[in-house]
Amino acid sequence: MFLVSDNTGPVHPSVLEALTRANEAYVAGYGADDASARAVQAIRDLFEAPEAAVHLVATGTAANSLILASMAQPWSTIFCAPMAHIQEDECNAPEFFSGGAKLTLVEAENAKITPAALRAAIAAEQTRGVHGPKRGPVSITNATEKGTVYSPAEVAALAEVTKEYGLPLHMDGARFSNAVAALGCTPAEITWKAGVSALSFGGTKNGLMGVEAAVFFDPALAAEFEYRRKRGGHLFSKHRYLSAQMEAYIEGDLWHDLATRANEACAHLLRGLRQIPQVEIAFEPEANIIFASFPREMHQRLRKAGAQYSVWSGDVETGDPAEMLTARMVTDWSQDLAQIDHMLAVMRGA
Amino acid sequence: MFLVSDNTGPVHPSVLEALTRANEAYVAGYGADDASARAVQAIRDLFEAPEAAVHLVATGTAANSLILASMAQPWSTIFCAPMAHIQEDECNAPEFFSGGAKLTLVEAENAKITPAALRAAIAAEQTRGVHGPKRGPVSITNATEKGTVYSPAEVAALAEVTKEYGLPLHMDGARFSNAVAALGCTPAEITWKAGVSALSFGGTKNGLMGVEAAVFFDPALAAEFEYRRKRGGHLFSKHRYLSAQMEAYIEGDLWHDLATRANEACAHLLRGLRQIPQVEIAFEPEANIIFASFPREMHQRLRKAGAQYSVWSGDVETGDPAEMLTARMVTDWSQDLAQIDHMLAVMRGA
Amino acid sequence: MFLVSDNTGPVHPSVLEALTRANEAYVAGYGADDASARAVQAIRDLFEAPEAAVHLVATGTAANSLILASMAQPWSTIFCAPMAHIQEDECNAPEFFSGGAKLTLVEAENAKITPAALRAAIAAEQTRGVHGPKRGPVSITNATEKGTVYSPAEVAALAEVTKEYGLPLHMDGARFSNAVAALGCTPAEITWKAGVSALSFGGTKNGLMGVEAAVFFDPALAAEFEYRRKRGGHLFSKHRYLSAQMEAYIEGDLWHDLATRANEACAHLLRGLRQIPQVEIAFEPEANIIFASFPREMHQRLRKAGAQYSVWSGDVETGDPAEMLTARMVTDWSQDLAQIDHMLAVMRGA
Amino acid sequence: MFLVSDNTGPVHPSVLEALTRANEAYVAGYGADDASARAVQAIRDLFEAPEAAVHLVATGTAANSLILASMAQPWSTIFCAPMAHIQEDECNAPEFFSGGAKLTLVEAENAKITPAALRAAIAAEQTRGVHGPKRGPVSITNATEKGTVYSPAEVAALAEVTKEYGLPLHMDGARFSNAVAALGCTPAEITWKAGVSALSFGGTKNGLMGVEAAVFFDPALAAEFEYRRKRGGHLFSKHRYLSAQMEAYIEGDLWHDLATRANEACAHLLRGLRQIPQVEIAFEPEANIIFASFPREMHQRLRKAGAQYSVWSGDVETGDPAEMLTARMVTDWSQDLAQIDHMLAVMRGA
Repeated sequence: MFLVSDNTGPVHPSVLEALTRANEAYVAGYGADDASARAVQAIRDLFEAPEAAVHLVATGTAANSLILASMAQPWSTIFCAPMAHIQEDECNAPEFFSGGAKLTLVEAENAKITPAALRAAIAAEQTRGVHGPKRGPVSITNATEKGTVYSPAEVAALAEVTKEYGLPLHMDGARFSNAVAALGCTPAEITWKAGVSALSFGGTKNGLMGVEAAVFFDPALAAEFEYRRKRGGHLFSKHRYLSAQMEAYIEGDLWHDLATRANEACAHLLRGLRQIPQVEIAFEPEANIIFASFPREMHQRLRKAGAQYSVWSGDVETGDPAEMLTARMVTDWSQDLAQIDHMLAVMRGA
Repeated sequence: MFLVSDNTGPVHPSVLEALTRANEAYVAGYGADDASARAVQAIRDLFEAPEAAVHLVATGTAANSLILASMAQPWSTIFCAPMAHIQEDECNAPEFFSGGAKLTLVEAENAKITPAALRAAIAAEQTRGVHGPKRGPVSITNATEKGTVYSPAEVAALAEVTKEYGLPLHMDGARFSNAVAALGCTPAEITWKAGVSALSFGGTKNGLMGVEAAVFFDPALAAEFEYRRKRGGHLFSKHRYLSAQMEAYIEGDLWHDLATRANEACAHLLRGLRQIPQVEIAFEPEANIIFASFPREMHQRLRKAGAQYSVWSGDVETGDPAEMLTARMVTDWSQDLAQIDHMLAVMRGA
Repeated sequence: MFLVSDNTGPVHPSVLEALTRANEAYVAGYGADDASARAVQAIRDLFEAPEAAVHLVATGTAANSLILASMAQPWSTIFCAPMAHIQEDECNAPEFFSGGAKLTLVEAENAKITPAALRAAIAAEQTRGVHGPKRGPVSITNATEKGTVYSPAEVAALAEVTKEYGLPLHMDGARFSNAVAALGCTPAEITWKAGVSALSFGGTKNGLMGVEAAVFFDPALAAEFEYRRKRGGHLFSKHRYLSAQMEAYIEGDLWHDLATRANEACAHLLRGLRQIPQVEIAFEPEANIIFASFPREMHQRLRKAGAQYSVWSGDVETGDPAEMLTARMVTDWSQDLAQIDHMLAVMRGA
Repeated sequence: MFLVSDNTGPVHPSVLEALTRANEAYVAGYGADDASARAVQAIRDLFEAPEAAVHLVATGTAANSLILASMAQPWSTIFCAPMAHIQEDECNAPEFFSGGAKLTLVEAENAKITPAALRAAIAAEQTRGVHGPKRGPVSITNATEKGTVYSPAEVAALAEVTKEYGLPLHMDGARFSNAVAALGCTPAEITWKAGVSALSFGGTKNGLMGVEAAVFFDPALAAEFEYRRKRGGHLFSKHRYLSAQMEAYIEGDLWHDLATRANEACAHLLRGLRQIPQVEIAFEPEANIIFASFPREMHQRLRKAGAQYSVWSGDVETGDPAEMLTARMVTDWSQDLAQIDHMLAVMRGA
């Protein structure tokens, strides 16, 4: 009953095995090794993007910030949803790496930016000469921070707007695999074929130890990425251990398998929650996150039973037992369905 | 015959084992787990510094830059040797993380700053009101980038100067273990007992996969380190895997054993080189790095035999066979002495 | 009929005379002259704040950004209204000078932040550990960008919230004189007595050539302001010419006289506009700015007659003659009431 | 006897007159006025550079930093002399505006960089992949901070090196007029015809109140200068008063006349100093600055007589009367030769 985050579970065993295999002999540092070349190629193949510029880093914040900084000027504004990770959970990293760009929050429905809201937000900027910021990149998260998923058509509709204004489109794919697994599409279809310029291709939340790929479908945008990564302290000397993880991730579609497992555990949990009358589901869970509201008293029972998840607001311990508190529950590949069933039983008062 | 760097060798097996052991069950992210608490405590114990503020990051550039940024204002200047890693090999990361601080280069002898040169450099700054930069932290590297080592007395003599001016003293300890192993002192003696305010305690060059500790003996300097780390993209969600490495490193003094092995391999190589008449040794090798000059022809023989090391300047392939070219040779814990012997034989023309 | 901005009118003649008087003999640079000391003292006297730290700069953006950077960390967020000049019209200068702080937009009523909205916005930040930004300074503009005015009681109510959270309160006073003239209070009453920590005391929009004072009622916040100003390129070598303007501004309450004239011209214009049936007034004009909506056809007549003011949205030339377009009209000290009357006549169709 | 700096003297009367003339009527702000267009054109004409991008700012630090930031990436290094104003006297402003670029100090002879030293410095950078900084712009000061002057041939020789490496060449022309007056060349000959990419064209040290022009002979480099200027707080709303000064400066070659006067006063002083046996002249004074060493006792006499100038090191009041202390003496257009004669007499003991 551990649903705090998809970064609290273990690394998949085959990833550890890959690290062990990589731990042989002397190997050139800083990405100049064969495994690193193979990892880059594997990503290009996976995305059917032979020209893509691909670089590995160890954290999602690094991937997002370095990509956005490559796309934005310090006097730009980056368009994103109010609940975007880059806005809420990166402690001003995008501002830091970009040298002071602003974030303009675009209204979202079901945690997804709509083309109309995006067009309005873009149109409202760069209307006051050099007094306001210049229009910069647009960033969307897929799957979103609320567990919803943009379809290829939805992404394409947003890309149409960004192209109209000549702006690049970034996808924060910390949970990209969950989105693809949910959509049943190819990685290419939901990215460059739909108009995405660059992707943060996440691995850490889906069974890796700590690897994300910055994938630039428009390689021109990555021209000086390596300088940015190095001066950000994000170039690993023993780069082979990042590459080994990424290779293992792509080999045999491990990324897809693990995401599928996480999504299925989530669907299983969702079905159970929907059968409990007091539970209300916010957003439409499509990947591996559920936001569910239920009475404090139910939270108290769960907590007593050892369930772990985030309570979005309100104190579980004290207050009206009937008051509705919102839980965020996140599943990962390693979820035990029996534990979920047990948790549902606790909620039902069984 | 792999002497390119101490980051090209493998990770010590016990570190991989520690990662495997850490890979059990659900664990809180971002350093809020037991293993992370244990790793911090282990470092405090090792340094006899119960109050030290300790934070883990994955790269040396991150450790150095985050520490220096914690000590410097954007309008400060940081004092360091001309060959300091922070000056030569971090692609302006100290400038980036500090928000634009300057680096003032202090003359070095045998790659080590002297108290007289430091006093002169500090005295020359902050003499023009707000027109020049403010005096900021002093940073020394131990063991140095050239393989020499500051003794506790030498560090203390520098610290006397920094205290005179009220400036913090940083030690870049990417090869700290090699220095301690060479000196036969305790970690405390060469750091806070000698006046060091904060240390980048390196692990990556000495058998870890990618972990460095920022150790603030003056914890006040670390007040907002965690904000800095997060916005730099250097806070790991699956932090347990950093902590596991660091625990393994300290347990049973692995850090000291590995550094001793590296140093011994270096001493072995040095003895051999000194017996070859054409070889000239620059700097006084005390840890695990040798700068040796010898004729191009000898380089060509080595290269043909498969030896790998950095040539500091000049093209090995073409030019006067008698011209002296400088090699940097770095040993790590995994060095095979037989290979070194073979390499020496090749040099001797055997 | 020039109502584009209060920075399009001429400098008051007595300011030019002061510049001429200052143009005698040799004088120490960078603010180390008698006139500069006198200007600082005059501001302290005016604000009944003998301990205030006072520094002159030449632009409002510099004053705001340097003050906010003194109060914010790069990982902070600054709270302000959506129409704040620092958000809309400074091209990311606050982000630049602060080293990457974020701006959190707080809902405003009549262009003024309410205590409830402020408390909600502050409470929502710094709730996710180091993942989100740290709470930083609150910035309000008085008179606001929409021409409304915070009363001392309104400021005090906001200051109560900022004190609750230990946050400093900044007032962007580009039109501070207009606010004071409108309120009939003292400068002290609307600033430090109401809880303001630092003020951008504007001169440029009110008859000066280009001078603003950064006034820190809490001088501790200004500890390193001079370094910030210098590295921002905002320390004037011939500082005496800034000081001369400021002295002239305060002498004989020129600042108050000029603001009163501007406000009266605005009130005159407002009375006239209110008598024209098709005109709708947005916001409640209390200082020297009016936002008025009226039919395109009326705009066209005005433009033909040579009237100059900003049209907030929409094209004056083409479109439905009956469509309502919004004008921003700003008066300054030099306004000719006869011209305003003429303009009103044109609007009335006379 | 005021020789502290060329920014301690008064503004030329015709500049004040120009300000008064500019103080008529309503005028568009932010440089969108006729006078601003005329000032830009006057500079283009003066430099025979019809395509040049020209922008006015109020301080030399702003001009230098904004130009260098336009030419450098945050991961670049800027090449300059150790005594460059951008290195010594701008409190890290180049680092700030560039987002963290480094400054690489190039050895200078007679305060001037030589082509050989420049080539060596450039060649030594960008040799370590992304580990060290990228080669960035070269910045020279003309006339130098030590009063020497680069000839067109000397500039061209440096430009040959910068072109070889594809790097832009910046000239800090805080005392550009003094250099041109000394050289007897045209502004074009010492700038773009000699290979200069952009110039900080100084006015403040030569009779203006506070105006410098950023002149980009390669206008592509200025593509986003206006965003940079605005977010640096350096765009003046009442821009006409900057433009009026610049127009007056160029009209009738005032810039050249004032610089000639300053240089002649300096030459007059130099002739006198050379006739005093104890005086030693450092550097070769060619413009309006002299570095002269003479015994402390002589300094004491001068100080008693009211002479004002900078003493570069050492305390005038106490110490061996025979010890040599170095004075920096700077002349401006308003110098009274009789005062200089009086000062020389004091030095001679008359």
